[in-house]
This record gives sequence, C-alpha cells and structure tokens, in this order.
Amino acid sequence: MRSMIPDYLVDVLGDVAADTSGALADYIPELAAADPERLGTAFATVDGVVYGAGDTGTEFTIQSISKPFAYALALADRGFDPVLAKVGVEPSGEAFNEVSLERDTGRPLNPMINAGAITTHSLAGAETLGAEERTERVVDGLSAFAGRRLAVDEAVCASELEHAHRNLAIAHMLRSHDVLTEDPVAVVRGYTRQCSVLVSTRDLAMMAATLANRGVNPLTGEQVVPAPVVRQVLSVMSTCGMYDAAGDWATQVGIPAKSGVAGGLIGALPGQLGMATFSPRLDRHGNSVRGVSLFERFSSDMGLHVM
Amino acid sequence: MRSMIPDYLVDVLGDVAADTSGALADYIPELAAADPERLGTAFATVDGVVYGAGDTGTEFTIQSISKPFAYALALADRGFDPVLAKVGVEPSGEAFNEVSLERDTGRPLNPMINAGAITTHSLAGAETLGAEERTERVVDGLSAFAGRRLAVDEAVCASELEHAHRNLAIAHMLRSHDVLTEDPVAVVRGYTRQCSVLVSTRDLAMMAATLANRGVNPLTGEQVVPAPVVRQVLSVMSTCGMYDAAGDWATQVGIPAKSGVAGGLIGALPGQLGMATFSPRLDRHGNSVRGVSLFERFSSDMGLHVM
Amino acid sequence: MRSMIPDYLVDVLGDVAADTSGALADYIPELAAADPERLGTAFATVDGVVYGAGDTGTEFTIQSISKPFAYALALADRGFDPVLAKVGVEPSGEAFNEVSLERDTGRPLNPMINAGAITTHSLAGAETLGAEERTERVVDGLSAFAGRRLAVDEAVCASELEHAHRNLAIAHMLRSHDVLTEDPVAVVRGYTRQCSVLVSTRDLAMMAATLANRGVNPLTGEQVVPAPVVRQVLSVMSTCGMYDAAGDWATQVGIPAKSGVAGGLIGALPGQLGMATFSPRLDRHGNSVRGVSLFERFSSDMGLHVM
Amino acid sequence: MRSMIPDYLVDVLGDVAADTSGALADYIPELAAADPERLGTAFATVDGVVYGAGDTGTEFTIQSISKPFAYALALADRGFDPVLAKVGVEPSGEAFNEVSLERDTGRPLNPMINAGAITTHSLAGAETLGAEERTERVVDGLSAFAGRRLAVDEAVCASELEHAHRNLAIAHMLRSHDVLTEDPVAVVRGYTRQCSVLVSTRDLAMMAATLANRGVNPLTGEQVVPAPVVRQVLSVMSTCGMYDAAGDWATQVGIPAKSGVAGGLIGALPGQLGMATFSPRLDRHGNSVRGVSLFERFSSDMGLHVM
Repeated sequence: MRSMIPDYLVDVLGDVAADTSGALADYIPELAAADPERLGTAFATVDGVVYGAGDTGTEFTIQSISKPFAYALALADRGFDPVLAKVGVEPSGEAFNEVSLERDTGRPLNPMINAGAITTHSLAGAETLGAEERTERVVDGLSAFAGRRLAVDEAVCASELEHAHRNLAIAHMLRSHDVLTEDPVAVVRGYTRQCSVLVSTRDLAMMAATLANRGVNPLTGEQVVPAPVVRQVLSVMSTCGMYDAAGDWATQVGIPAKSGVAGGLIGALPGQLGMATFSPRLDRHGNSVRGVSLFERFSSDMGLHVM
Repeated sequence: MRSMIPDYLVDVLGDVAADTSGALADYIPELAAADPERLGTAFATVDGVVYGAGDTGTEFTIQSISKPFAYALALADRGFDPVLAKVGVEPSGEAFNEVSLERDTGRPLNPMINAGAITTHSLAGAETLGAEERTERVVDGLSAFAGRRLAVDEAVCASELEHAHRNLAIAHMLRSHDVLTEDPVAVVRGYTRQCSVLVSTRDLAMMAATLANRGVNPLTGEQVVPAPVVRQVLSVMSTCGMYDAAGDWATQVGIPAKSGVAGGLIGALPGQLGMATFSPRLDRHGNSVRGVSLFERFSSDMGLHVM
Repeated sequence: MRSMIPDYLVDVLGDVAADTSGALADYIPELAAADPERLGTAFATVDGVVYGAGDTGTEFTIQSISKPFAYALALADRGFDPVLAKVGVEPSGEAFNEVSLERDTGRPLNPMINAGAITTHSLAGAETLGAEERTERVVDGLSAFAGRRLAVDEAVCASELEHAHRNLAIAHMLRSHDVLTEDPVAVVRGYTRQCSVLVSTRDLAMMAATLANRGVNPLTGEQVVPAPVVRQVLSVMSTCGMYDAAGDWATQVGIPAKSGVAGGLIGALPGQLGMATFSPRLDRHGNSVRGVSLFERFSSDMGLHVM
Repeated sequence: MRSMIPDYLVDVLGDVAADTSGALADYIPELAAADPERLGTAFATVDGVVYGAGDTGTEFTIQSISKPFAYALALADRGFDPVLAKVGVEPSGEAFNEVSLERDTGRPLNPMINAGAITTHSLAGAETLGAEERTERVVDGLSAFAGRRLAVDEAVCASELEHAHRNLAIAHMLRSHDVLTEDPVAVVRGYTRQCSVLVSTRDLAMMAATLANRGVNPLTGEQVVPAPVVRQVLSVMSTCGMYDAAGDWATQVGIPAKSGVAGGLIGALPGQLGMATFSPRLDRHGNSVRGVSLFERFSSDMGLHVM
C-alpha cells in the first residue's frame, strides 16, 4: 500500500489547489510577502520513510507550530509539576491572542495560546539559564525534533519584534501575576526567535513523526523527549491545538494537530505517522485553508480519526 | 487475560474505597440522601461480556450521562446539519451550568453543558413530535443503548423540577434567541425527565459499550445509532465531556468520558470496551471523586490512553 | 421669563422635527404600530405650573420610565437596607437587557437594568402582599406620582407577556440565586403590567416634577415618597438612567433622566423642574432620538447641567 | 457661618480618628512605609479662603487624583473630539486596574481607570512634544491647578516604575490597538512621573477649588483650563471617579470626587468649594477609609449632595 502514498498525495494536492480562499497573515510585511500559491505536503512514518508532494523543501517560519515542541522541552527539562503549576491544560474557547488567564492565579489556560506559549518558553532549559541560552536551548530542541540543524529567519524575527505589542502586553501581565518571573521583554524576544525558526514541510513531517514515535526521531534515533511527555503534548494538541476551532477539528479530523500563521500545519498519529502541509492562506481562525482541507481528506480517506 | 479482569476490578475498588473526600450533590433532597459509600464498577466488551465488582446493580439517576446519548439520538433523528446549526462542538472552558452561549447567535457552545443538552433534548425525534412523545423517544433511545427497558425515578424528577430555575432561565434565554423554538417550560420538563432515568453501573457499562461498538448494542445486536454519529459523540465527549476539567482528563486519562451528578461515570474505548463506575461523592467540578481515581487507574494500568 | 417658555418649547420642537432617524421598537406588534411622527414635550415646575408643546396628551406605555418610580416605591415601602441587599447602585456599562448580575451574589447591578427592575418590582409594597396586590400597589404608586389615576394598556401587556422570554430567563436566574424569593413567572407578569401603564407626556412631566419637588406632587400636594428616597432615586438615575450611554448623557446633558422604549424620556432638575419628551424613534441604545436632542437643547439653552 | 468651619473640621476629624480599619497600599515599599495615622482635611472656597484641620501640610504623592487634572489638560490642549476618540466617558463597573477596553476599538472606557489615564497622559500637550516635554507639560499643569510649583517624589517614581508591569501590559495592549501611538514604555514612564507628583492636603483643596471655580485658580487667578473642560471633567468624576464604588458614592455622598492610593481624596462642589482629605489606610476599592467617612459627613452635615 505504501507505494500508493506518493500518488495519493499528488492527487489530493491537485484536488485542493483550486481553492484560493483565505488570506495571508499581514501583520508583518515579511509574512504578507509570502507566495500564496505555495502548496506542499509530506508524510513521515515512524520507521523513517518520508513521502512528499508539491513544495516540501521550501522553508518558512514555524510560528505557532513551535508551541507543542517547546512545551515538550519544558516538560522534559523541568518535570510535569513545575510546568503545570504555571500553565494549564484546559481549552480556552477563545482566539489565540486573547489573554485567557485564569481569573485568580493569572495562569494561562493552556500552552497553545500565546500567553501559555510565552510562559512555556520561559520554562525550557534549566532554571539557571540566561535568556539567550534559553532560546538556544529551544532552537536546539526544535532541531533535534527535526533531525537537522534549523536556522532562524532574522528578518522575520526582527519584524515580529517590532510588532510584538500584544505579546509584550501579555508578558507584562504574566509578570504582574508572577507567572513569569523573568524579564518579560527578554522572554518575548526569545519566544519571537522561537517562532522565527525556519522549517520545510519535510522538516515538519519529521517533527510530527518524532511525536508519533513516542519522542524518538525516526531518522536520527535520538530520544528527544521521554514518552510520557509526548503523551501529554499530544493530549493537549487534541483539545487545544486548533484554537477556537478545536472542537470542529476534533469531530471532523480527529488527529492531534497544530497550525502556524505562516501556513504550516502538522498532525501526529501515535505509533504510525507524522503529517505536514504547507499553504499560506489562512481562514478566520488563523489556520491554513488548504491545510485544513488536506487533513480532512487524510482523515476520511485513510480512516485516521482517533475515535 | 480476560479471566484476570474480575480480580483486577475488585483490587482497584479496594484501593480507592478509603477515599471519602468530596461531597454529595445537595441541590435536591433526593440526591443528598444517597448512600455516599456506594461503590461499583463494570466493564462491558464489544462482544458482550460484562465484568463487574462492587455495587453494579444498584440503580441511580443517569443525570448528565444522558447528554451524549441524547446527542446521539438527535444526530440520528435529525441529521448532522440541523443539530450543528443549533448546538456547537467547542469546549467552553466553563462550568456545566454557565449559560455559555455564542455571543451573537445564542447557540450553546456544546451539547455537554446544560444549555446544549436542553437544546439537544428538543432535537430528539421527529420535528412533529409533541413534548411528551419527544421525551418518550429519548427514554426509549436510552433504553436501546442499555439493552433493556429503563424507568424514570418520579420522585427525583419531581424534586428536580422544583429546583429547575437555572435550567428554566437557560431555556427561556435559548427561546429568546430562537435556538429553542418550542415551549421552554415543556422542554425543561422533558429534559429533567431524561436526567431522571434510572440506571445501574452495569447498564452504564453496556451503554458505553454500545458507543465503543460503533452504535451496535453488544447484547441485543441492535444498531441504536449509525457509526458516524458515534464518532461525533465520542469526539465531543473527548473535548467537552468533563466540563471545565476536560483538559485534565484528556491528559491524565485520555478516554472519552461523561460524568453525572448522581455519581456515575462512563468511558468508551472505541473498538474495545465500555466502562462505568459509581460512587456518589463529587469533586468541585461535579465529577465523582472515586470514579475519577478509578479511571486514572484503568488508563495507566491497562495503557488505555488514546494517545 | 416663564411666559417665554411655551414659545421656546414650540421652537425647539420645530428644530428637531426634521430628524426622522432611528427606528421604532419592533419586538411586539403594538409598539411597531406606533405613529413615528408623534412629538411632544412638557415642563412641570415644582409649584405646579405645566407648559407644553406638541402632543402632550397622547397616551403611550411608560415602559422603563416606570423603573425609577418603582424603585422609589420599594425604598419607601421596605426601607433602604432590604432593597440595597437585593439590588445594587453601580452602573453596569452594559445594555439594558444584559443579565448583569454580581458574580458571586447574583445581585443585579442597579435598578435601571431589567434584572434590577424585575427585582425592584418584587420589593414594592409589604412583603405579605400577593402578586396581584403588589402590582396594584405599583400602579397606585405610579398614579400618585402622576397625580391622576393611570390605566394599563391591556393589549400591550398581553403582547409583551408573549415575548417575555428574556425577562423570564432573567427572573428564573434571579430566583436560582434567591435574589427573587417569589414565583418568577408571577413577578414577570407584574413587572410587565407595570411597564404597560399608560401615560401622556404631561403625566411624565408631572411625575418628574414630583421627583424634582422632593417627593411631593406639585398638583395634589401628596408626599408620594420621602425626600431621602428621592435623592437616592435621582442619584441612581444620574449614573445608570441612560443604560450604556450613561456617561455620554452625564457629560452632554447632565440631568438625571430615564428613557422608555415607547419613546418617552424624563428628566428631573432638583428644586426646579420636571421635564418630559415623547418621540417614538429610538437610537441604538434604545433612547428616543429626538428626545435626546431635545434634552441636549434644554441643557445647553438653559444651563441646566448639574455640574 | 464661615467662622464655624475650622471648628467643624476639627470636630469631624476627631470623630473619624478612631477608625483604624483598612490597610496601606503595599505594592511598593515607599507607600507601605507611610505613617498610617496621618489625618488631615482642607476646604478652599472659590474666592480663595482656605480652611484646614490636622495634617494639611504633609506632602504625599498625588497618584490617581492626577487623573481628572491630566484629563482636563488633554481636553484643553487637544480639544474634545480627539480626546473622546481615544478615551470614552462610560463607567466601567470594574476595578481601576482592569484592562476595560471597548471590545472592538480597544478604546478605554473612561479616563479614571488606568488604561484611560495612560492614554490621557499621552494626549496632554501638543502632538509634537517628546515624551519628557509631555510629562513636563503635565507637571506644569498640575502645578497651575495647585497654584504653586509641585515637585516629583523621585524615590516613589523609581519604585513604581520597577513594579509597573500591569501598566506596561495595559500600555502595550493600547499600542497594539493603535489607541496609543507612541512608545508605550515612554508613556508609562511619564504617567508614573505624573502619579509621583507631591501634594499636600492644602494643595489638593486648592486644585479642587480650581475645578469648582470653573477652571480659574482662586489664588492666582489663572484660567488653567476653559470652563467647558471643567464641566466635562466634573461630569466624568461624578460617574467614574470612585472606580467600582462609583454608584455607592453617587448615592451616599453625591459630590464629584477622586481618590488616590496614597490616601488623598478630593471633591469639588461647582461654584462653591474644593475639599480634600488625607488618610492613608484604604478600603477594598482602594479609597481612603477615613476620607470616605469624612466626605459622607461633609455631604450630610452641610447638605452638599448635588441631588
């Protein structure tokens, strides 16, 4: 059956190519200048075989797809309890950039919204690390998930920093609640750098396959994070990964997933497969329009729904 | 291995029996008068074998555990689109009795909160049914899931109706948004009757097994609802089934589940197993304290987490 | 100067007559069928002189303008503390039909929003009164403020009751918090009757003049409510009387006021004057468009701003 | 009668002196170290006579009492429309440090909450001013209201800046909505400096008297801001000046007022009197406990309620 996968991927890409609905993210010039026609998909199996169709090699910024991986690193580096004390696991029912803090504690509801992801970034690596070392730890960790050294898009990073007022607002609010205990400006700088890591669709498929393979990168064989961490991450992706469309996704696709504002989208099928798509036009929830269609096709064509 | 199950169930019951934390629901005298020491659990496999330990025969009111089954009936009777037009599938991040309606449309966020469950009740059976026939349709449907004729606890039902002000408030609010199109008082009466259906732990295990078995009751062989309906129901249970503790449950237990205020708790493992527990003391989320512990044990001892 | 008032009133009516913006309330047919061109204004001095221009004799339903007067009756009949324990005095910053209850207590924020007004109705008259006697007490009290026997528009009342789902929702919610202790349906019935009392613009001016005259009706000489009650009522009107436009009103007009959905609007200038206008087209806050313009003119032409 | 005022002030100070309830603001060490027993009051008439009792000369930081005066300066310097486009006039019903922005526009609800006050600070002086010149303009303006050159408490200012995370969060949020168009960090720095201006109780009475005297300082004769600006400021103080206790204040005291976290409290009676009190212990709303008692006494003893 596997020999059929490449043809299948080409076919479904063809089916969704005509859909030009949605719009590029435009809050920074660098994202607004992306080629909206780019379209690619890749599957990576837990035993290391990669299938692809379309633009699987073009690099783009990982953006929010970094969130579950940084969460995995924080859980692995600090342990469950210290991380859970700072970031919850409950769906927020709100958009990704809502502040969404617990009323009394100021704890972000989950690590997939920005407030939770900013806090999570501050929890990666040992407590003693400086801000730059911590960011380095995160970029190293993302690279280990991908199985190759990833770079940062300095232009996107610089531009995002100039438009980071909402994230700075969130970080200062977290600091005022003592959820963040470090300099909020330095944390936002590191988090923005995390979001500016460059990946290809193929990289994303391999990162997702590392989750599907219980934390072991199928190519390098490295145990990037322990298996219980992966279960936690996949569980949170399944309830909070698609922002305020989490329930739609759970019913219609049923695969733990995460999207990024540059057009990437990943899904992980435990024990089987990492999947990734790339198409920059976004729907009103901030998810890739053609990416969502592709995953709906994958789910129904191959019966991948976890239920 | 199966021969080991009865001993296992007795063992884990023994382990949790000492935990007397939590409190009985006390908003009506009938629930406050329950025996807090009751403790039982049952497993029903998709091929119809039932294992149990403790109080598996005592009857208690189904309460909110009726919600996923009534949702299944509405989806089966009316089709997906009409139901989705009235009730969403997004987790609310709020307690079960919050109003939690979408800001503009007044649509309840999901069928597991009271607003959504009240609306769902009104969507069971054909549109032409009268209020009493509709309630009869729901009780019949619950009975088909259980594989035997279920009765209503008239005393609990009458007492709940006397304390139904919050549900009446919700129903009138839904009526003012035209989400409910029938008499709100009649709908609340029917919904209260649905919640007052008497079940044993064994019944609940069989109802859950019917979900695990893609809609076919393992004992009677009846296809109670179609398989796509079951997938929808299980997906919604996995994201919204445990109220504002949905994320905790997804990470720590990872089995689609639903709890009731009388102390029942069910879980369904697709293709394998229906599980049920009964213990009346509740935690602050309204979930059975010992029931939650039992499911955590089931999940970790037997590796049942869906991720 | 007084001899100039009638000419002044005719003049300003002429100035605003051309403004046909806004829309009739249309949630019941009886209000939607009102003549939108009706326009009238009346001033009543604290020594009993009444000036008028335009339609000062046409009767329409008092609607929310009844709220401050019913609040006065409740304060007079029960005393300050029991009323303040049930209804707050803080502006809500929200629309009139928002539920707007205090988070923990369920206490309505103020008596000018529906939740507060429904509660206030239940506090008029002695605690021992039945629902119908209580409503009678309110209609009697409104009549005493007007100085003549007022009637109820039975058609409007019946039609409002058919569309009272939101108020019923609010009342059941109040009952569930034990803010209301009586039958919520009976209270809504009485409150709806209170809102359906028929008044002319001239009546409203006299009712406002009774407030301006520290509770003594300038015509009949009756002390309808004590002076401290009037101060409380005027203070609450000044911060909460114009719903979510309360701040705009306080800065631009600066006269304690209250509007009704049938097109009435009153203002009271302590020690001096009761003012009323009538024009049925409403702005998006639910206030009479031409009524608001007239009061802005009154305030600036005559320097009536309390600051 | 005026000769009786000094004795009266001494008397009422004596009456409230025994009340040691409430607590010092403790979010910075400098405020927590204040002498909690300080107690003073001063009245300044519109013709320039000042009466006082107790500690009328001790200096403390003006804090939020600067808000109405900075609002007056912004209105005078920029005109009503540009200021109203950026800051509303509606009561928020929320605590002073809630973000409280309008849902769609991000406009702060009023200039008395921190979000509105930070925005207002950025609107003082000409648009072309740099951040430091703008702050200078505000300190100059506050001095003109007081009728003498006021200084800044550099120690308090530095300490507040170290604990300004919540205000920085608010400012970045305002910047992300383009309500603030300048560097949020610089605006917070300037706003903090504004709050750190040192005043005595006597100064505050004179500043309030300048409002009561339609913008003309009774001592210097300077028209600090135009009369229509003063009316706007007093109207907003009357609906929003006492945070989430605005309604309580309006009913029980009925004088436009503003409190500060260092223990100051002012009230202005248009055409008559500026009043000020100083006592550092605060109630749960952040208002001076003995200050509130004093104003309740002033209002009832002298019949100062505006209604």
